[in-house]
Amino acid sequence: MQFSSALLENAVNEFSKLPGIGRKTALRLVLHLLKQEEEDVQHFSEVVSRMRNEIKFCQRCHNVADADICSICANSMRKQDVICVVENIRDVIALESTQQFSGTYHVLGGVISPLDGVGPSQLNIDTLIHRVQKEEIREVIFALSPTIQGDTTIYYIQKKLNPGVRITTIARGIAFGGELEYADEMTLARSLQNRLPIESYVSNK
Amino acid sequence: MQFSSALLENAVNEFSKLPGIGRKTALRLVLHLLKQEEEDVQHFSEVVSRMRNEIKFCQRCHNVADADICSICANSMRKQDVICVVENIRDVIALESTQQFSGTYHVLGGVISPLDGVGPSQLNIDTLIHRVQKEEIREVIFALSPTIQGDTTIYYIQKKLNPGVRITTIARGIAFGGELEYADEMTLARSLQNRLPIESYVSNK
Repeated sequence: MQFSSALLENAVNEFSKLPGIGRKTALRLVLHLLKQEEEDVQHFSEVVSRMRNEIKFCQRCHNVADADICSICANSMRKQDVICVVENIRDVIALESTQQFSGTYHVLGGVISPLDGVGPSQLNIDTLIHRVQKEEIREVIFALSPTIQGDTTIYYIQKKLNPGVRITTIARGIAFGGELEYADEMTLARSLQNRLPIESYVSNK
Repeated sequence: MQFSSALLENAVNEFSKLPGIGRKTALRLVLHLLKQEEEDVQHFSEVVSRMRNEIKFCQRCHNVADADICSICANSMRKQDVICVVENIRDVIALESTQQFSGTYHVLGGVISPLDGVGPSQLNIDTLIHRVQKEEIREVIFALSPTIQGDTTIYYIQKKLNPGVRITTIARGIAFGGELEYADEMTLARSLQNRLPIESYVSNK
């Protein structure tokens, strides 16, 4: 692509560094911004730069936060003795969007994956074990991806947790709206194994 | 989507204002930026804001420029007496990428489209006619979209141009790699009507 303006070219280069944004899409986004009011683009630019400079990570659960402790940990209405262990911030947002969970979170920052060079020491596992020991936690819910790496991580952590704590994982099964015939064997087998009494199914509806 | 950080939420809101970027994609982009170095995000933000504040439009051809006159108009190696008329900046970039055109451009800013409320006065038509009168232009090439609106615009402008100027349009026909049977009738009819002697086809290959 040939640009007659270096300012335009630099902006397109910056946008095309973003994941999933090619040069054509980057150009479209930049030309869109070019058509907006100067203040709006100024605001866009400031919000992005403030976000990166001022955002913090919760000292307790490693979620994104505007202060030292995130708004979920700081909320006394939530069950502080239940921890849901997730891989990343996106999972927190997904679970919060269900509005079904009223405990706290713990963001691991990934799962144990020796092939990718990710061992337990790179993840926020020590702080989780410390939390469970110190805070009289009643239940630890694992909400990790149903992969070998996820299962390994669950296995590794649960061996280190106090024996008194209740440890659960989110249910695996056929997704809502999913078709039985297209489900893989592993999922189908697990969903058969962990079948539910019909009453609990009807009451959840 | 529920966010535990207002800084994050604001950034996602700003990104999701961009065309074709939904909230999930916006979140992915913002979390990507969150993982980058602070200076890199600062640079991104500055480049975007500088682009909007400092970019100019060429006083001669209305293309984007870093100065009062764009680098194409300012380039004395280019044929200053040939003007290629295009709808927008993106078309200039597309044509420049072919590296086949060594004249100058004129960006109309759209095409005449009464249904969308776009009349000749909203477009950069007057400056084009003025340029052709003043600058001893030899040829005006129309490179507009092959639509009714594009054709109307060509018809409107060519009636206002000096009779001495050579007026051409880019060839319509079957696109390279396009299949004949899927071409629409209009394109096929025009490409038959404007058939080329075989010599020119072979020499272009």
